[in-house]
Amino acid sequence: MTRDDVPTPALLLDLDRLERNLERMAAHVRRAGKRLRPHAKTHRCPEIARRQVAAGALGVACAKLGEAEVMARAGVRGLLITTEVVAPAAVRRLLRLAAEAPDTLVVADNLENVADLGREAAAEGVTLGVLVDVDVGNRRTGIAPGAPALALARAVAGQRALRFRGLQGYAGHCAHVVGWEARREASRAALAPLMETRRLCEEAGLPVEIVAGGSTGTWDIDVELAGLTELQAGSYCVMDLEYRRIGGRGGPALTDFAMALTVVATVVSVPTAERAIVDAGLKAFSTDKPFPPEPVERPGVAYAFAGDEHGRLSVTDPTRAPRLGERIEFFPPHCDPTINLYDRIYALRGGTVEAVWDVAARGRSD
Amino acid sequence: MTRDDVPTPALLLDLDRLERNLERMAAHVRRAGKRLRPHAKTHRCPEIARRQVAAGALGVACAKLGEAEVMARAGVRGLLITTEVVAPAAVRRLLRLAAEAPDTLVVADNLENVADLGREAAAEGVTLGVLVDVDVGNRRTGIAPGAPALALARAVAGQRALRFRGLQGYAGHCAHVVGWEARREASRAALAPLMETRRLCEEAGLPVEIVAGGSTGTWDIDVELAGLTELQAGSYCVMDLEYRRIGGRGGPALTDFAMALTVVATVVSVPTAERAIVDAGLKAFSTDKPFPPEPVERPGVAYAFAGDEHGRLSVTDPTRAPRLGERIEFFPPHCDPTINLYDRIYALRGGTVEAVWDVAARGRSD
Repeated sequence: MTRDDVPTPALLLDLDRLERNLERMAAHVRRAGKRLRPHAKTHRCPEIARRQVAAGALGVACAKLGEAEVMARAGVRGLLITTEVVAPAAVRRLLRLAAEAPDTLVVADNLENVADLGREAAAEGVTLGVLVDVDVGNRRTGIAPGAPALALARAVAGQRALRFRGLQGYAGHCAHVVGWEARREASRAALAPLMETRRLCEEAGLPVEIVAGGSTGTWDIDVELAGLTELQAGSYCVMDLEYRRIGGRGGPALTDFAMALTVVATVVSVPTAERAIVDAGLKAFSTDKPFPPEPVERPGVAYAFAGDEHGRLSVTDPTRAPRLGERIEFFPPHCDPTINLYDRIYALRGGTVEAVWDVAARGRSD
Repeated sequence: MTRDDVPTPALLLDLDRLERNLERMAAHVRRAGKRLRPHAKTHRCPEIARRQVAAGALGVACAKLGEAEVMARAGVRGLLITTEVVAPAAVRRLLRLAAEAPDTLVVADNLENVADLGREAAAEGVTLGVLVDVDVGNRRTGIAPGAPALALARAVAGQRALRFRGLQGYAGHCAHVVGWEARREASRAALAPLMETRRLCEEAGLPVEIVAGGSTGTWDIDVELAGLTELQAGSYCVMDLEYRRIGGRGGPALTDFAMALTVVATVVSVPTAERAIVDAGLKAFSTDKPFPPEPVERPGVAYAFAGDEHGRLSVTDPTRAPRLGERIEFFPPHCDPTINLYDRIYALRGGTVEAVWDVAARGRSD
């Protein structure tokens, strides 16, 4: 099967680029004396997780329990669930997972939740590793740094079936700050209270083995912090337009990692000289960003969404008007929610489909 | 299993409301002397398609061949594929489908495509029903109305393995015009050239059995046209915020059909008195519209997206601050791409899960 045989719309992944991205990040964290637990919410694909672990990662971070269950079933270990698990039925699932994969970690940001986890884990005879989730300014989950986080860490340590392993501080609001220097400043400011919380815990006699954080945007920034032990960057493995445009140390585009992921579409209608329609619309690409998919090495056209199943190409160069049946690839605006639309990834080596990988945790936001 | 046992985030469908919506539309087209071939791209769920057919629909419209293949495999007949099928491998799949389900219809808007379909259908010994897809101002697919459409209809009729069945004119640009009178005016203007094309075809001796068009927004408008034979409205079965806000004949909200679909989420973090976090973000809701998911009968909070897996609730009434573990339902902004994120629909009768339905054509945009 070649690149041109894949039914469209479909996700294509360039394996050479993926491997280069994995190697680059692995070498980087090794050099910096850090560890890596890349975020599997990006790809939801056990085949990619396995390659990340083979390149030296500790395991993978999972946004949700459902995602972690799929990764565990595929044999991936070293799982960190980065969202609080609260519902009683979900806690029971979490404990089953921890019984199978005892190195699984979960985050907590609430005393009541810690008490529930501790009680249920004790009842099940499971020991559960916990990171205290600290709000570093992202205004999402996380307890306030400093004294409140320390009190929660003590509560975790006080539960006999829980094991306090450290802290998580995800500065999502810094990940896409445009301009490397501005991003560095933002991330430094955000993570300072996390470092201070680490110090408080250690002073209180609570050993902090793990301090997890970071993003693809701050991959070469957060490793400067002595107190951070592991990165949980996700998008670096495949990249997307959103990350490319934040700029890197070297210039206005983040080119540290290669754009490895595209959506291939077919021109299904050429109704006028100024317009062509492709078979990829808002069920084929993420739509959460204000910028559209970008044609790859295909000048002369600009893409706009035209409904669930269609994209409208405006012909900007009449000498390059699309022809009926032409296949065009696009970089997606945002990789995570784009991949989450597909059941499979066509993994390409040059023009050949080397493998078809299941996005096995697709839709597993539960 | 009750409503409160469903792991979150999840799609809930109120069966009483669904049934009321199906009955209302069925009675309406019956009264108007029209037929109905509702769009399955909304739900991608054979169980709903079967109920639409049981209520009198001719079959279902499918946006894509992949969707139609799933519906056919589930035993649904009377399929109309509303997007052109162009790629050679896709044409072969289409002919296999038409061999199994001979009443399948496909649209065409291009002479070259008609020649391809005719040649391949003849080679396979299959007769394929074709509607000429007419651009009624939607600026998507479709040949220009009038003489170009007539010429294409003649080309279809001239292919021995194709059968010219009629016309499709989808006025997507009218579906969401706010205000009933304005919408009526827009749809009338858009569909006039389609009616004229019908007349031209009949004058040329080409019988036009089918003229398909319409949307949920124009459900009680387009039936006024004598020349339109069938509606392909989709969203009416479950509704969404986008359609509700366009207004109806009776007022500023479209209340002809009930809001039957919700996403249920759980509060997983209550980090401050002003903020709560639910486990449903941009992988749980459509994101193509500028308005956010709306809490259902849950005053005191407003939802904003907070990443792939989180929603941020701002507490607007401190006496109604969400509690940890609370379950909250939300109306999705846009039903089609929301359903397309889920593998299953929990079908509820009151508080009881009566059935769990596969969204079997989820992701089948190919």
